[in-house]
Amino acid sequence: MTNMDHLKHVDAHMDDLISDLQMLIRQPSVSAKNEGIEECARLVQKLLKDSGINSEILRLKKGVAPIVYGEIMSKQNPSKTLMFYNHYDVQPAEPFDLWDDPPFSGTRKGNKIFGRGATDDKGELITRIKAVEACMKTTGDVPCNIKFVIEGEEETGSAHIEEYLKKYKKKFSCDGVIWEFGYVDAKNRPIIGLGMKGLLFVEMSVSESIMDAHSSLAVLIKNPAWKLIEAVKTLRDADGKVLIEDWYKEVVPFSKNDLEIIRKEPFDESIFKKEFGIKSFVGDKKGMDAKKALVGGATCNIAGFVSGYVGDGAKTVLPGDALVKIDFRLIPKMIPSRQVSRLKNHLKSKGFADIKIKVFHGEAAARTDSSDPFVSQVKSAADEAFGKSILNISNAGTGPMHPFAGILNAPCISIGSTYMFSRIHSPNEFARIDLLKKATKCMCLIMDNFGNS
Amino acid sequence: MTNMDHLKHVDAHMDDLISDLQMLIRQPSVSAKNEGIEECARLVQKLLKDSGINSEILRLKKGVAPIVYGEIMSKQNPSKTLMFYNHYDVQPAEPFDLWDDPPFSGTRKGNKIFGRGATDDKGELITRIKAVEACMKTTGDVPCNIKFVIEGEEETGSAHIEEYLKKYKKKFSCDGVIWEFGYVDAKNRPIIGLGMKGLLFVEMSVSESIMDAHSSLAVLIKNPAWKLIEAVKTLRDADGKVLIEDWYKEVVPFSKNDLEIIRKEPFDESIFKKEFGIKSFVGDKKGMDAKKALVGGATCNIAGFVSGYVGDGAKTVLPGDALVKIDFRLIPKMIPSRQVSRLKNHLKSKGFADIKIKVFHGEAAARTDSSDPFVSQVKSAADEAFGKSILNISNAGTGPMHPFAGILNAPCISIGSTYMFSRIHSPNEFARIDLLKKATKCMCLIMDNFGNS
Repeated sequence: MTNMDHLKHVDAHMDDLISDLQMLIRQPSVSAKNEGIEECARLVQKLLKDSGINSEILRLKKGVAPIVYGEIMSKQNPSKTLMFYNHYDVQPAEPFDLWDDPPFSGTRKGNKIFGRGATDDKGELITRIKAVEACMKTTGDVPCNIKFVIEGEEETGSAHIEEYLKKYKKKFSCDGVIWEFGYVDAKNRPIIGLGMKGLLFVEMSVSESIMDAHSSLAVLIKNPAWKLIEAVKTLRDADGKVLIEDWYKEVVPFSKNDLEIIRKEPFDESIFKKEFGIKSFVGDKKGMDAKKALVGGATCNIAGFVSGYVGDGAKTVLPGDALVKIDFRLIPKMIPSRQVSRLKNHLKSKGFADIKIKVFHGEAAARTDSSDPFVSQVKSAADEAFGKSILNISNAGTGPMHPFAGILNAPCISIGSTYMFSRIHSPNEFARIDLLKKATKCMCLIMDNFGNS
Repeated sequence: MTNMDHLKHVDAHMDDLISDLQMLIRQPSVSAKNEGIEECARLVQKLLKDSGINSEILRLKKGVAPIVYGEIMSKQNPSKTLMFYNHYDVQPAEPFDLWDDPPFSGTRKGNKIFGRGATDDKGELITRIKAVEACMKTTGDVPCNIKFVIEGEEETGSAHIEEYLKKYKKKFSCDGVIWEFGYVDAKNRPIIGLGMKGLLFVEMSVSESIMDAHSSLAVLIKNPAWKLIEAVKTLRDADGKVLIEDWYKEVVPFSKNDLEIIRKEPFDESIFKKEFGIKSFVGDKKGMDAKKALVGGATCNIAGFVSGYVGDGAKTVLPGDALVKIDFRLIPKMIPSRQVSRLKNHLKSKGFADIKIKVFHGEAAARTDSSDPFVSQVKSAADEAFGKSILNISNAGTGPMHPFAGILNAPCISIGSTYMFSRIHSPNEFARIDLLKKATKCMCLIMDNFGNS
């Protein structure tokens, strides 16, 4: 058992953590719109410095969001290095009118702090900074070397993280990575995640004529929305299976070990359904099938579809163009560029060669081996800080874990404070203060376990 | 032949017509957003008065756009009354960024005046007012009684015109109606229209969950855009035929006479295609089939479709809801309320009972008998003013001709100044000054022919 002064320090300084988080939320940093990115990077650098962490802003080139880098060397154990990977950018806050409070207000109500980024990822980031600060303030040292890599393009697909990792490979060298987030379930159990799915985000657009027309001309002029609907419908079946040829070709089935971890992982379907107000799942999945889908299912999701007049009231227009945004979640062995080729071939073979495809980004999936000692160090810390924890072979979401694991050759684990129903990416996103506190303590204990191993 | 002073007056006063039209355009009047409606009604009333026409604003009840009514009794022939039906409201101007000039600027460039409503319907309206003014200024009288009915809800479906016609049936009594617009084709031939199609505008919406979700949850949570796409796809086939049961049940085939008129009507496919930048028509229609579709085809058109994130960049969201706006063009004998029931039954029978339907409005089609003497009076005036003209059994578009013909028991004919490719309802709508002049003269001659018959 370690000296517990740092945990007491966390308890005693939650007000500081909350006000610093509110300050971070109040600085919008929407990477999709390049809104407030530089300002937020400077704010994060200041926060690191104020917490006693050496900090600098790293850049690749103009037009690329900077990385805020933090570092503090351990006097007692300079041979091991733990990295915290986080991001300071957030998703767009639209639709604004569905927020109860302004999305960048950081309003506190009881145990919750509301705002875009409250959890994802400003809430997670603040717990790690405050954990390091607690160690420094109570012992004058950290149990192992600590590195922070805080990027600004996660929400648009981390387009340059691989380039950053390659350029700063030496500076970023480490023995383990704590991922930018970690879910906590409805029973307050943190989920220790060993993997992330990949993502392929594309826009498909169609034009049938060079301008909008009066809809009376629909007897003769083709409507691009019809064509896009026809095309999109060929991409997946009603059960959610992707119908593009060879889409699943390289995918390896779950191992017995995978299945055992999946089986042990609790998943309360009724709480999940109640939260989203739904009665059944895609393809009417239940039990083990639903759990397998969460950790290992590929998707084809319509993230956005727009054509014609979408304001209030009636407008009898025949649109000139139509656009759909689709995100495909990828699973291990699916290579994004190869999947793009398959999508293009599919559209061609179905007679939709004239549909334009714009690929926003592709990110391969990644999974960390569950036998790595880092896993048990994290699990022990989580059990102590939260009283319990759950192992998960892959998160349903995406992050650039693949280049981290590959370039830095370090195991990556996600663990954090993100309540599963905290509405990340949606209106009224919030962070739970009780979880922020437990996660901060958990980070203190992970540093202890990792440094003392 | 009549005294030609009024035609000379038209020639001499085109600058006044143009500046009055610009003034009208500069007063936005978007009925779909209730923007500038009252202000525009007052402006139109002032214009009528300034042209020597008695004018008043008629109201039904709060929340309903007023009708601007104008009247001038003939001294020489008080036994016959001609009505001009027009509207002062316009379509929304979106998307704003596709306009070369601000949509409410009324910018003149050479022979064109640009702006939302430049043609539809402020351009048409001004020709009729100026025609009456020309008669009054040159002869001190009009050849027949003139009535103006200028409504403010045409672009949202004329929801209250029937109620107005019933309430003011006596005030509005007349022997013939000149419709709010008339197309002019690529060879400068005015089209004398004897009918209008009907319209049924509906919104269909789906919710699958009570909020947007992170798109990683698409493995389990259903996406409403998928369901709406599935549903919409069942409504029509690739050739444009509506697949709703009994949709065409009461429709009467074209008579031999209809077919003869259609056959005579010129339609230059290549000019039409070039204008819209298209290579083929819906269902690959050609020749007589394309012409039959224009005057007698029913449609199911996607006027708008929206779900999820449609801004710039990528947002990995699973939308909570999806919405489609569909307009169905109706042909004679299709009763809107009956077609709504058929649509609802169709969705139920296809398993889409949970899709919500909002009916914006329904308007039945109408056609005037081509043997009515009013037809030849108009044709003779058009031939004189434009040098040529074309007879058309039904416009492809919609207007509330059905209640006019029924309640006022008067033949309705459309004839006017709307160049077929003047981009009505689209960005960069414009009016052609040469056609405004010819149409004004045509209205003078129609009054002459009608009054002297």
